[in-house]
Amino acid sequence: MPSYRAPIQDINFLLNKVFDADSLFASMPATEDVNAELTSAILEEAGKIAEGLLAPINQSGDQQSCQFRDGSVITPDGFKEAYAAYAAGGWAGLTGDVTYGGQGMPKTLSALIEEMSFAANSSFALFMILTTGATLTLSQHGSDELKKRYLPKMYEGTWTGTMCLTEPHAGTDLGMIKTRAVPNEDGSYQLTGTKIFITAGEHDLAENIIHLVLAKLPDAPAGPRGISLFLVPKIMVDESSELTGERNGVRCGSIEHKMGIKASPTCVMNFDNAKGYLVGELNHGLSHMFTMMNYERLSMGLQGNGLADSAYQIASEYAKERVQGRAPTGAEQPEAMADPLLVHPDVRRLLLTVRANVLAGRSLSIFAALQLDVSRFHPDAEVRERAEKLISLLIPVQKAYCTDRGFESCVMAQQVLGGHGYVAEWGLEQNVRDARIAQIYEGANGVQALDLMGRKTVRAKGELLALLSEEMDGFVAQQDGVAAMQPYLDALLSCRSALSRATDFIIDRSASSPAEIGAASYAYMELMGLTLYCYMWLRMLATAHGELSGDGAENRDYLDSLVKVGEFFLARQVPKAQSLLAEIEAGSETLMALRADQF
Amino acid sequence: MPSYRAPIQDINFLLNKVFDADSLFASMPATEDVNAELTSAILEEAGKIAEGLLAPINQSGDQQSCQFRDGSVITPDGFKEAYAAYAAGGWAGLTGDVTYGGQGMPKTLSALIEEMSFAANSSFALFMILTTGATLTLSQHGSDELKKRYLPKMYEGTWTGTMCLTEPHAGTDLGMIKTRAVPNEDGSYQLTGTKIFITAGEHDLAENIIHLVLAKLPDAPAGPRGISLFLVPKIMVDESSELTGERNGVRCGSIEHKMGIKASPTCVMNFDNAKGYLVGELNHGLSHMFTMMNYERLSMGLQGNGLADSAYQIASEYAKERVQGRAPTGAEQPEAMADPLLVHPDVRRLLLTVRANVLAGRSLSIFAALQLDVSRFHPDAEVRERAEKLISLLIPVQKAYCTDRGFESCVMAQQVLGGHGYVAEWGLEQNVRDARIAQIYEGANGVQALDLMGRKTVRAKGELLALLSEEMDGFVAQQDGVAAMQPYLDALLSCRSALSRATDFIIDRSASSPAEIGAASYAYMELMGLTLYCYMWLRMLATAHGELSGDGAENRDYLDSLVKVGEFFLARQVPKAQSLLAEIEAGSETLMALRADQF
Repeated sequence: MPSYRAPIQDINFLLNKVFDADSLFASMPATEDVNAELTSAILEEAGKIAEGLLAPINQSGDQQSCQFRDGSVITPDGFKEAYAAYAAGGWAGLTGDVTYGGQGMPKTLSALIEEMSFAANSSFALFMILTTGATLTLSQHGSDELKKRYLPKMYEGTWTGTMCLTEPHAGTDLGMIKTRAVPNEDGSYQLTGTKIFITAGEHDLAENIIHLVLAKLPDAPAGPRGISLFLVPKIMVDESSELTGERNGVRCGSIEHKMGIKASPTCVMNFDNAKGYLVGELNHGLSHMFTMMNYERLSMGLQGNGLADSAYQIASEYAKERVQGRAPTGAEQPEAMADPLLVHPDVRRLLLTVRANVLAGRSLSIFAALQLDVSRFHPDAEVRERAEKLISLLIPVQKAYCTDRGFESCVMAQQVLGGHGYVAEWGLEQNVRDARIAQIYEGANGVQALDLMGRKTVRAKGELLALLSEEMDGFVAQQDGVAAMQPYLDALLSCRSALSRATDFIIDRSASSPAEIGAASYAYMELMGLTLYCYMWLRMLATAHGELSGDGAENRDYLDSLVKVGEFFLARQVPKAQSLLAEIEAGSETLMALRADQF
Repeated sequence: MPSYRAPIQDINFLLNKVFDADSLFASMPATEDVNAELTSAILEEAGKIAEGLLAPINQSGDQQSCQFRDGSVITPDGFKEAYAAYAAGGWAGLTGDVTYGGQGMPKTLSALIEEMSFAANSSFALFMILTTGATLTLSQHGSDELKKRYLPKMYEGTWTGTMCLTEPHAGTDLGMIKTRAVPNEDGSYQLTGTKIFITAGEHDLAENIIHLVLAKLPDAPAGPRGISLFLVPKIMVDESSELTGERNGVRCGSIEHKMGIKASPTCVMNFDNAKGYLVGELNHGLSHMFTMMNYERLSMGLQGNGLADSAYQIASEYAKERVQGRAPTGAEQPEAMADPLLVHPDVRRLLLTVRANVLAGRSLSIFAALQLDVSRFHPDAEVRERAEKLISLLIPVQKAYCTDRGFESCVMAQQVLGGHGYVAEWGLEQNVRDARIAQIYEGANGVQALDLMGRKTVRAKGELLALLSEEMDGFVAQQDGVAAMQPYLDALLSCRSALSRATDFIIDRSASSPAEIGAASYAYMELMGLTLYCYMWLRMLATAHGELSGDGAENRDYLDSLVKVGEFFLARQVPKAQSLLAEIEAGSETLMALRADQF
């Protein structure tokens, strides 16, 4: 049975040393009480929950799966108890609005908790994430009346939330949704339609489920500009937030049989004249949803990263214990029948690739989450705006690149175990299956890449990228004269120069050839992801060398290991930048040449 | 429900046009009757079986899985009937020794049949492959007595075969096996030990199962040189190949719960004083197994390729039918709510990558299979020897590169369907799960890469690679003056020059730094795979252009599509060669720097 250890040492190093989150939080009135002591205490407690409460029901949850019976969803054994403990601990309202009972903690904190939860039990983590997303949307766009009635119970974890967007014929292209909302005289609406792929649409963990639903009024404008957002409770709620007992017209029609995240019910939700309440402005539903999207997408990147980390933990332990073959330099354990797997350079390549990407992905996620906190809490509007711009550039990359590397990492870790990785016992095949969804949901990675390349780069005429360049320039300038850092700077330079050439190439070509954007988008996202991971590694290396050069470092061996992993990354991963650039510069012609019927 | 179409058009083009298998078979006495008419008839019939018999029970087989009850394995519904039809059709003995009732057909033919069978139903295909592997080993190394007693029934499909190699503590490192074979006075042996991961070790499809088992005599030399090979029947067999009814001491202890190939039972086999018969020479068991390994490994590459092809078929149909979003150049179907997915360049990138790799992988497999046939059937010993050398170089690449591309292709095809790719209904998540094992079994891909880099390249001092270079030089020389081919030759040149630089680098460095071989091996395998795929595409392009330049081509549109897919491959896949070279040239230092406890 696999176990999971929360990466507290990594987190403390990144949060407090590399990113100095403490100083940032202290500089903003809304977070000034969030000091290193508090964050450490919260993260350690969350780590214990991931280790002791979520991890033990991960494998059994997968094997048992959610069951659908007569409109109800039964979660696997132990989920009810774990959820009750999670709610009782006050975790559901961690980042919530303090006016309605939330704790107002920064997203950076919850991001790290989410990573650990996804690592320990992705199916369970989804129940948490969805409610957080729904409360965030509600707190930003709902009326005071709606917030007062719904938020406190959701922050308590007594009720959970969902996001109902996708319909059978409309996934990425939400402009085509058919769910109808007909106004009542009292200002409420009656909703009718079918939503699919609704995570936690129905389950037995909480007494009520609050659905946030995209729908169109009968006379709404066609396409995305006619979409409104509604709150639809499963069971009706009175003014004092008590259940009336009256069941609303929304029911789960079935659940999907999926590749993974089997303990998370993915529901078909049928709205049949269900009563709903408008959230925010009519016909602004999509933009209301988008304010929450950056938070949700960050969470998906964290899922990829978390599953990669738990996979690494299993695979690296296995590689230390399992003996098979001999070291290339001669037997290391001549008295034993064979040497541990770890003597083989190619096994090290697999493990180091995973470890290097986990650390870079975690750094990038913290970096992005801090921008989210700045954009929300910083008193200076200009600083907030700059953070928002950076976020809009970073999030599609973090979502797509971290989930791609996450899946790839789980596959690599699985490979370390050979045939034992393919059987259920060791847990790694579940990591692979669970990680796969993160590349698909919350905007498939191809959609993220297109958003990055089209809207965030070409249409923004490179303005957002310039902000990121400024950020990296600042860091590089700081390293001037730091001897230990000089050998590393070329790697970042080569990534940045490839990225800059690619950007110019696309901005130039896309004016006359619109297909160029989509043709380059995926490689461009990968090139930017690689550049950001490289930048993150340079930041980690700078901090590690800085600590090592002092006398006070308590954890020299840990810091030394980080330096070695970072050097591996720069030497053996960064060269990919050149082939990504070449792929982009090959242009769109060969992609567009085939007629549809030739496929 | 997904359906499968056998790729008969592709196969005819490759087999008869690109590789002119007809002429080769005609040139060898043992295969002189195997003309294009016969191969077409056989392949079309096999295609119908894959489409009509195997594909329909693929998804249900996965869902139902094999069941283990009281030592017996129950296969899913329909498997018994399908197997009976397969056996009745005479397919089990297709490539078998004619002396014992086989049909003596070339491996090239069965390779293509295997690809289709794996594409349609990988679990079912494994029952076929294992028996073929066992009969091949037996026919090459068994005594006449053993062959006479066992081969005819196995060629009939009345009995199936297994390969029992792995033990709980010994996978890649077979030198450590503990299964003991104690000689009896009558020349037979009593075997005791436990084997794991035994495909089709127990099932209900055939009346008997013939196990080929690696074991050691009590006084055998330590390590791989003390391994012998034994035949162990499940039910004892008399001299006239009739079952005696006496059950031998070999039983299935349990079956594995796996990520995929769930309708193929992966068994723990307990040998408890089971009677066995020596196959070949004492202590030469491993080398006897290795003669069969090249055939088996080729089959695994075909599994990757087949599953990629069936995934492509589903995804390309979906992309034509599913409408979502608009073309970058403006609406293509303005009257509809949206355009088909296929208008999006990034969806085309996914599909073209899969299609280009499927065609190259199939070509490489045919190329390698033809060498196997030459090495077996050619009357000229020198020609046979050259083919054997080429095989020993090609097989590890074909196994690892085709299975890696196969898995990656299934993941890419799954991505085209978004959320619908993640649910069971469309079948693609099963392709991903089923394709994953091919990277692991029959020698994990890292082991293939090490074999290629160490034994086949460094220790062979580049001699094998020189043969391949000679082959490619010959082809390039033929293209001299062929105008249509000139734009393509640079791609092959750049791959070959990267490969040659990498080879020199490793041969040079490994003399003083043994870890360099393992550190470079995976990227080197990928670089050689890419080079071979590039070479295969040039051969397809040369043939397609040749056909198109004449008046007689009936299938101009098909040939045109091949040219376009090939041009996509050269423009957008080949650039990876540069970063693979850079990864190799980064050397082993950063891989070996961490101490074991720092992982």
